[in-house]
Amino acid sequence: MKRKEKIEIERPKIRRSWDRNPATRVHEPTKVYNRKKGKTVVFKPEEELGLHQPAGGESDSVAMEKRYRYCPYCATPLEEKFSDDRHRWACPDCDFVWYNNPVPACGGVILKEGKVLLVKRKYEPRKGGWTLPAGFMENDESPEDCTKRELEEETGLKVEVKDLFGVYEAGDDPRTKVVLILHNVEVVGGELKPGDDASDIGFFSHQKLPANIAFKAHRRALSKLFGRPV
Amino acid sequence: MKRKEKIEIERPKIRRSWDRNPATRVHEPTKVYNRKKGKTVVFKPEEELGLHQPAGGESDSVAMEKRYRYCPYCATPLEEKFSDDRHRWACPDCDFVWYNNPVPACGGVILKEGKVLLVKRKYEPRKGGWTLPAGFMENDESPEDCTKRELEEETGLKVEVKDLFGVYEAGDDPRTKVVLILHNVEVVGGELKPGDDASDIGFFSHQKLPANIAFKAHRRALSKLFGRPV
Repeated sequence: MKRKEKIEIERPKIRRSWDRNPATRVHEPTKVYNRKKGKTVVFKPEEELGLHQPAGGESDSVAMEKRYRYCPYCATPLEEKFSDDRHRWACPDCDFVWYNNPVPACGGVILKEGKVLLVKRKYEPRKGGWTLPAGFMENDESPEDCTKRELEEETGLKVEVKDLFGVYEAGDDPRTKVVLILHNVEVVGGELKPGDDASDIGFFSHQKLPANIAFKAHRRALSKLFGRPV
Repeated sequence: MKRKEKIEIERPKIRRSWDRNPATRVHEPTKVYNRKKGKTVVFKPEEELGLHQPAGGESDSVAMEKRYRYCPYCATPLEEKFSDDRHRWACPDCDFVWYNNPVPACGGVILKEGKVLLVKRKYEPRKGGWTLPAGFMENDESPEDCTKRELEEETGLKVEVKDLFGVYEAGDDPRTKVVLILHNVEVVGGELKPGDDASDIGFFSHQKLPANIAFKAHRRALSKLFGRPV
């Protein structure tokens, strides 16, 4: 499944004027007594909402989605609310809370004579970059079914899932935060050809891997596969 | 992280009158020529949207969420659209598409003398049911960090993640479709006590497991752990 890119790769400015109801805006850090820690913990709204610009240092996260502004069930403007240990955007009229959870994607690892099957991205984001064949999981399928579907769509190969290869995560996909679930798979049919979202396809040894691996989660998986940094 | 229950455990009726714009309603199955299959495929909207009531037979899916009705970015009423091989609800004014992806949850497996650590749910859904300690993954954490956080919140124990135990999925959580990522963990500190969302906690052997395991994904994980059906 191809997912439309929802946002540009840029960090949003914090614009509190978006909120329609000034009474509900959180201007001050929230102080909460944490029983376990035995002390009062100060939450700064920008940090808790993941909207702050890091002062410096390393960060691979670009999945700074523009936030939900309206309730998707009743169209009421969302308001900041302290819920489940965090500031979140929630509907004041119904019980909707925007949890903004990561999204699972599934894919498969096919090895042939020490070479791994990769596909070249046909569309943005990271058009022209290479990844393991994988895609976002639909609501009505299991991780294994998702892997089988994505492999057939992207590589033309029919596969069976053997076992779990690993779970990887990195924040460098601009569409959303992704959790990548990878399976070891066995080819049982089909014909190798780039399909759907792929513009090219090929088997690569560690020495000849493309330089432009599209996402860090895939780079980490390939590092584990070859037992050395990729 | 505790997630508010958004819906009752009941299958929604298909009420097309919800749509404001009659011109955009899909009354007829969509026919699409599938290049790979070399034939025309008929999509029935209800099935594609996951809103249909199965005619009969087995189904453990109750995660029939009421659908998004408005664009969360611009409040425009959503319209049915054929996108990425499926009927989806999409915004006619901006590029938002409601993909309704599953949500990842992470947790840990702690074994002591052949007994597994379970927690009793303090809140709905499935209040009083038992599960492995686990919870929904936040946007700003890795699966491993989520497991560590949830273990400390629910059991009071500080843990280190050793390796991946498995990934499980079942459609019987009424809040949303969940993908459960479980790690083998090692206790490195803390004090065992039911915290946060738990009303009780305990170690159980296979013979003395509670009858009311709250969710099928956890039941499947326990079956794998003990090597026999749970």
